[in-house]
Amino acid sequence: MRSFLGRDILSLRDFERAEYFRVFQVADDLAPYARNRRNGELLKHKTLVTAFYQPSTRTRLATEAAMHRLGGRVVGFSDVKMTRAGDFYQESIKDTVHMLEYYGDVIAMRHFQQGAPAEAARWASVPVINCGDGWGEHPTQVLTDLYTTWKELGTLDGLKVLLVGDMRMRTMHSILYAMSQFDMEAFVVSPPEMSLLPEFKAELDARSVRYREVPAAADVVGEADVIYMEPVVQPDYTKSRDERAGEVGQTPGAYRITRELLRDKGKRGAIVLHSLPRMDELPLDVDTTRHARYWIEAFNGVVMRMALLALVLGAVE
Amino acid sequence: MRSFLGRDILSLRDFERAEYFRVFQVADDLAPYARNRRNGELLKHKTLVTAFYQPSTRTRLATEAAMHRLGGRVVGFSDVKMTRAGDFYQESIKDTVHMLEYYGDVIAMRHFQQGAPAEAARWASVPVINCGDGWGEHPTQVLTDLYTTWKELGTLDGLKVLLVGDMRMRTMHSILYAMSQFDMEAFVVSPPEMSLLPEFKAELDARSVRYREVPAAADVVGEADVIYMEPVVQPDYTKSRDERAGEVGQTPGAYRITRELLRDKGKRGAIVLHSLPRMDELPLDVDTTRHARYWIEAFNGVVMRMALLALVLGAVE
Amino acid sequence: MRSFLGRDILSLRDFERAEYFRVFQVADDLAPYARNRRNGELLKHKTLVTAFYQPSTRTRLATEAAMHRLGGRVVGFSDVKMTRAGDFYQESIKDTVHMLEYYGDVIAMRHFQQGAPAEAARWASVPVINCGDGWGEHPTQVLTDLYTTWKELGTLDGLKVLLVGDMRMRTMHSILYAMSQFDMEAFVVSPPEMSLLPEFKAELDARSVRYREVPAAADVVGEADVIYMEPVVQPDYTKSRDERAGEVGQTPGAYRITRELLRDKGKRGAIVLHSLPRMDELPLDVDTTRHARYWIEAFNGVVMRMALLALVLGAVE
Repeated sequence: MRSFLGRDILSLRDFERAEYFRVFQVADDLAPYARNRRNGELLKHKTLVTAFYQPSTRTRLATEAAMHRLGGRVVGFSDVKMTRAGDFYQESIKDTVHMLEYYGDVIAMRHFQQGAPAEAARWASVPVINCGDGWGEHPTQVLTDLYTTWKELGTLDGLKVLLVGDMRMRTMHSILYAMSQFDMEAFVVSPPEMSLLPEFKAELDARSVRYREVPAAADVVGEADVIYMEPVVQPDYTKSRDERAGEVGQTPGAYRITRELLRDKGKRGAIVLHSLPRMDELPLDVDTTRHARYWIEAFNGVVMRMALLALVLGAVE
Repeated sequence: MRSFLGRDILSLRDFERAEYFRVFQVADDLAPYARNRRNGELLKHKTLVTAFYQPSTRTRLATEAAMHRLGGRVVGFSDVKMTRAGDFYQESIKDTVHMLEYYGDVIAMRHFQQGAPAEAARWASVPVINCGDGWGEHPTQVLTDLYTTWKELGTLDGLKVLLVGDMRMRTMHSILYAMSQFDMEAFVVSPPEMSLLPEFKAELDARSVRYREVPAAADVVGEADVIYMEPVVQPDYTKSRDERAGEVGQTPGAYRITRELLRDKGKRGAIVLHSLPRMDELPLDVDTTRHARYWIEAFNGVVMRMALLALVLGAVE
Repeated sequence: MRSFLGRDILSLRDFERAEYFRVFQVADDLAPYARNRRNGELLKHKTLVTAFYQPSTRTRLATEAAMHRLGGRVVGFSDVKMTRAGDFYQESIKDTVHMLEYYGDVIAMRHFQQGAPAEAARWASVPVINCGDGWGEHPTQVLTDLYTTWKELGTLDGLKVLLVGDMRMRTMHSILYAMSQFDMEAFVVSPPEMSLLPEFKAELDARSVRYREVPAAADVVGEADVIYMEPVVQPDYTKSRDERAGEVGQTPGAYRITRELLRDKGKRGAIVLHSLPRMDELPLDVDTTRHARYWIEAFNGVVMRMALLALVLGAVE
């Protein structure tokens, strides 16, 4: 297994099976800091630079919280609007990175353009962690999701995963790449205009990823061990909260996972994952079923970032 | 007295007399860290989450500074604009809190909606501190103000307090609730359209709070030991700084506390409190009178948040 | 030499020769923390307040990173937009400073108005560091640039410095003030509408600063030991990234430093400094020449802020 020291976390395309389990092991080892709510000192001498060109409060805060739990420091920016006027909005990634690399010891980057974190990694003298790049990938989120699945179900091999939502989303790319390393099978459910792109499907085929496109979640929910969701409807931020209230119910039934569907057709031990925020594809009354695992996913999100930061900074072997 | 460990600080409605004095005592104990400008280690292992849905630089920075003075860590967001696009702007408080609770060990929330911090506290596994909720309350500010009064005048009992400004403001609600626990008496001066709401007055009566509505500050300033102010005019942020300069002088005289008024009619030992920022209701030349206590109020604002954080996190008994 | 303890860093106008070298020495002493990527504890008990009324990611992050490298804490705001609504946008500097001074132990201020940091220093009980004030000065940047020059060329005396760009910029003011303390000579190249103002020239004359205005960089580049650049074209932020791509090439040749110019006419050991971001005045292919020193300038930017923070906070003598 390649060393994690100094390594960039850009994509799950090149992650190997043993590496997943190494990351899970470190996550297990570090989880007590989070569980006991007691910040440690493992990264006491290190600084994280958060370079978020798009606001993403969950991913940013989970990463920063992880750094603090291990005693590290955080500097950075959380929105390109804060940097636009007189700053590096239009600057090349190279120029920006040759500044950021001196502000800390690892860079966590969210960018609206696919490939930007990889371009940053090309120039940086410190590791770069991709926190979501356009339609590209979202490796730290999907590592969280796989870790959650592994913890909740005890294994990844032999599982059937129902993917529901917009298949162009970066999380869907990362999770399907990951499946090449496990004995997993995917059902893919999305609106036609949000389906897997042909070139991505060709790549999955080349990697022997087993997946099947299905019209509606209800068709296959009975076989799924894991239900993995993304919204198919995006909120209309030009409307007020009250105006938007009337929009609930707009997700077509084929892409919703309801309490009734889980009760009538779901597998007994199936778990539902959702990185949130949600629209109406996942009604609130699912929260109090035995299937919901999205809160523990949020907890694991911090733990996973702790593991990744500790690994690339060399605080654990 | 109930324990403060793990407790939410949502409202002064349910604060008891002994609890005020316990908080003041802890503030006194921790003040040297601030006075000596030397950060300690009392909360070294803890992280504060600041969830500010409205910008409020004073309250946010005072709370964060307090956490740093005690050696703790801070993560969070300071403006809903940073979270709106693609994030949890329209998310339920429950969903958001089930994320925030894993990012740290106490949540400090400012929200534009009354009751939002209480809703957050309903779901959170960590204490929630209300840093101002719409027209609701602002307990940490008013605890600061009462602590300042207690420090400056040596007592709270027997004092007459002149409240001047917009009575719908959350600070006014909190301070009037607090008065139910002390032998205090309020004079209430506000423009008619900003007066105490009938339902709130009914509640004050039920709690035996002694207050009297008066048309102008000048009518009662001679009796007041404490003058507690809020602006009645809000700045027009659509205008430039220069355009606004012409607006000075727009606060009606009845709601202003001037150097002349204090000199001619004020009680000798009266103190003036203002949480700032100010419009023209409190002219700059009051700053150099013996009555001004609003700078020490800013210092005490940090000390009070230190006390509250240390208490709810169990760092002091 | 005056003590740096508790001192404001507002301008290089009043910096004396021995003080520059003292600052450089402390920078050398503290550089290993940055070079070894290991945060120390020198400012463990101190908090930096960043008061950035304008976004400036480089200067803000360099200053914050410096504080973290020395083990200190940071609170603050990075944009006036975050403070405008309901906050101290239109507040007097005095009122704001009487709040900020309690949130930490040193204030780093960027302001759109010339003189604002000096006004803040008038009221603050803690040192104020000017991080750029309108058309005023930018002492921490220019101390970085002089330190970089000193490190790279071994001396400041005897050097000829080619200043290219907008001479109204604050960096140009600071560097020309600094030259009064060294045996240095400046060539000044700028578009006519961006030339040195008459009153500033009178002040330079009174200080015996040797400078000569020249029409084009090419005229004097052969004599220059240091080439110090600022853009003369500002990006048009109303246009998209793609639309702006067509704008490259708009900087007139007289104000550009190209690889060809350096090769054909440049002094062999000349160094090019640029505080970035750049427009097209400094083409990317200069990066791989022996003249480029702007990346090490970014590194030194952190080291210099470490030195200044340690000095004014009394952590070094």
